[in-house]
Amino acid sequence: MTNNRFKQYAKGIAGRARQASFEMANLSAKAKNKILFQVAGALRREKAFLLKENSRDVFAGRKAGLSSSLLDRLTLNEKRIEDMAASLEAVAKLRDPAGEVIERWKRPNGLRISKVRVPLGVILIIYEARPNVTQECAGLCIKSGNSVILRGGREAFYSNKAIANLFRKVLRSNRVSPDGVILVERLDYEIVDELLKRQEEVNLAIPRGGEALIRRVVATARIPVIKHYKGVCHVYVDRSADMRMATEIAFNAKCQRPSVCNSMETLLVHRGIAKKFLPLLVRELKSVKCEIRGCAETCRIIPEAKKATERDWYEEYLDYILAVRVVRSVDEAARHIRKYGSAHTDAIVTRTPKNAERFVQLVDSSSVMVNTTTRFSDGFQYGFGAEIGISTDKIHARGPMGLEGLTSYKYVVEGNGQLRQ
Amino acid sequence: MTNNRFKQYAKGIAGRARQASFEMANLSAKAKNKILFQVAGALRREKAFLLKENSRDVFAGRKAGLSSSLLDRLTLNEKRIEDMAASLEAVAKLRDPAGEVIERWKRPNGLRISKVRVPLGVILIIYEARPNVTQECAGLCIKSGNSVILRGGREAFYSNKAIANLFRKVLRSNRVSPDGVILVERLDYEIVDELLKRQEEVNLAIPRGGEALIRRVVATARIPVIKHYKGVCHVYVDRSADMRMATEIAFNAKCQRPSVCNSMETLLVHRGIAKKFLPLLVRELKSVKCEIRGCAETCRIIPEAKKATERDWYEEYLDYILAVRVVRSVDEAARHIRKYGSAHTDAIVTRTPKNAERFVQLVDSSSVMVNTTTRFSDGFQYGFGAEIGISTDKIHARGPMGLEGLTSYKYVVEGNGQLRQ
Repeated sequence: MTNNRFKQYAKGIAGRARQASFEMANLSAKAKNKILFQVAGALRREKAFLLKENSRDVFAGRKAGLSSSLLDRLTLNEKRIEDMAASLEAVAKLRDPAGEVIERWKRPNGLRISKVRVPLGVILIIYEARPNVTQECAGLCIKSGNSVILRGGREAFYSNKAIANLFRKVLRSNRVSPDGVILVERLDYEIVDELLKRQEEVNLAIPRGGEALIRRVVATARIPVIKHYKGVCHVYVDRSADMRMATEIAFNAKCQRPSVCNSMETLLVHRGIAKKFLPLLVRELKSVKCEIRGCAETCRIIPEAKKATERDWYEEYLDYILAVRVVRSVDEAARHIRKYGSAHTDAIVTRTPKNAERFVQLVDSSSVMVNTTTRFSDGFQYGFGAEIGISTDKIHARGPMGLEGLTSYKYVVEGNGQLRQ
Repeated sequence: MTNNRFKQYAKGIAGRARQASFEMANLSAKAKNKILFQVAGALRREKAFLLKENSRDVFAGRKAGLSSSLLDRLTLNEKRIEDMAASLEAVAKLRDPAGEVIERWKRPNGLRISKVRVPLGVILIIYEARPNVTQECAGLCIKSGNSVILRGGREAFYSNKAIANLFRKVLRSNRVSPDGVILVERLDYEIVDELLKRQEEVNLAIPRGGEALIRRVVATARIPVIKHYKGVCHVYVDRSADMRMATEIAFNAKCQRPSVCNSMETLLVHRGIAKKFLPLLVRELKSVKCEIRGCAETCRIIPEAKKATERDWYEEYLDYILAVRVVRSVDEAARHIRKYGSAHTDAIVTRTPKNAERFVQLVDSSSVMVNTTTRFSDGFQYGFGAEIGISTDKIHARGPMGLEGLTSYKYVVEGNGQLRQ
């Protein structure tokens, strides 16, 4: 396609999504829930077809030499399809955020002002291999009254198409425009670039994937992007920490699932406790062969630790590797986090309330944990019943984002003829 | 300067502002209010100096042939300086938004989660000639705990510098980094371009000025921008409207101050009432020599109306010109507003609650008025005590933005050793 063809294609998709968004925004909670239940039913009924389409992707992925972990994330099976259906039913049961009156007040001149939650409009999701992201995002966008444009990775193309088409079929059978859910079927990246510029129609882009993908999206976009580049999460073990609690929390934060964004990458430990604490923790870490990269003082305490370089402090290992630094105070810990961290999730373990308070005040991350593990930073763990992503931005939604993150508000002002003097 | 010099200069400013933002965010409400009161005092004390500096701008402006309305906006006098001081004192008296607990809940595993309001960090304001914007924005940013980078227009350079320096002096005398308020003193536009790319340090850009300025900012920015391009506001007069109320509201919306963004540009009127209503309104509009540009049906009813072209429906006149269109229903009015409007502020005048409700539901503008004038869409009129701008975006703050629009939130999670299973 020529540049102009890309532009036309993107414009067509964005325009259809925007047109549909007016219908989506005006669906009742009941109508939206009915659609979600019907898609869940369709997923179960069409299981055989979904597995067949998915096997085309898996076959191509094998031929293309995808890694076994990527292939695993790509592959559907009966259980995964059932999980997808159940997850849509769970979303249907959540409270509808649209229409909620957030605040209401009256002005001296009698004007009644309400701040009412409304859908954002059109949301563009850009993601990589997992086909269940298609169902997840389409479900959350429908529930919040938005249209969604899904741009999944090439690896999952047939799976994504089969899932998106189920949504479209159900929308149509409910006399709603199927363009409430659009899968981008031409995978030229230029089309994504064009979609990211369509300010008039697309209200938000959410890239879900690696840092390179996200940086590319931000560099092109003329529309708002909600994202986190990476999760360089810290646990700071204060001088007064309960030794056992600190060991458990640090081990959990690093090892319960090292490959995810809310796992710990760097441990900070107060020098007044380092000599006692580090050997205890390292004993546990050795049991899972976790590598230690330490500052000079850490290396003195833990002889088998490698020397950390400046780059290590910025690193998101997503693996059994832990950077360790000895610090002299809460303030120094906070300064380290501010400098090297990613504003995702950071924790303090302490028995001194004043230090916890100071840490919470100084650390400006989207989630700050006191005496618990960074791994809890998650929409489900926070009780949102859903998660469309985690934002480390400061504009709009921050931290784990559920349905509310997919909404905005408008002011409704009711009067009886008041005029401006 | 070479490109690289621009880059270095922007980097320097942004880095200093970010460094100061940690101090700003940690000031108590009392400390922030003290600073604002002291700046108000300094403005009054330094009145003579401010007037002298301002006269340099006015002199240069006259020589450069600025229009009389621009010169008026640029000129300070004793009253305007007193207004600036009083406005800072008013901001000092507002509730401090930072630190507010927005929500708090407990999870079944005992984790206590709070959603706490926090400052955004560093805010970049890009504006044109009015020097009081300098005081206004610096005041609101200080109150909300942010650093601000002010990039004012060349026309007001000496005035802006004098005002910004008062802020910096007071910050310094309170042992706070003066870089909480930075005026960009090199006016090469390339520096603005660079600042708009500094994602690591700058959290938000707010352009205040004409559409061309705003479009340029959006095209360059890699950071979030909050804005409205223009205000194409509508009043829809429903068939059941009280005739007198509708006339008063329409007249007020158009004529109380035509040059501002929340004044009406297009009147929509139900065809069942047009023949009676339009002549009544036009009689009023004639008294202020307001020009009418109408659809075919309007022109039949009002012979002196000019024929409106398609472009008129998109137009922000900011003048005594009104576009008028006859429509057949609330839905048609809403469709017109969706297509041609700017999502700023739109009003319905009706005695039918069902129609008001339908209008509010269908019109997705940042403010929707029922039986009152669009002119009330304003932070002060809404009771916010301040306004840093009006946003027609759907991300983050929408509609008139006060102090809350300059804040974000973080989650604080407190536990007693909970681990993720």
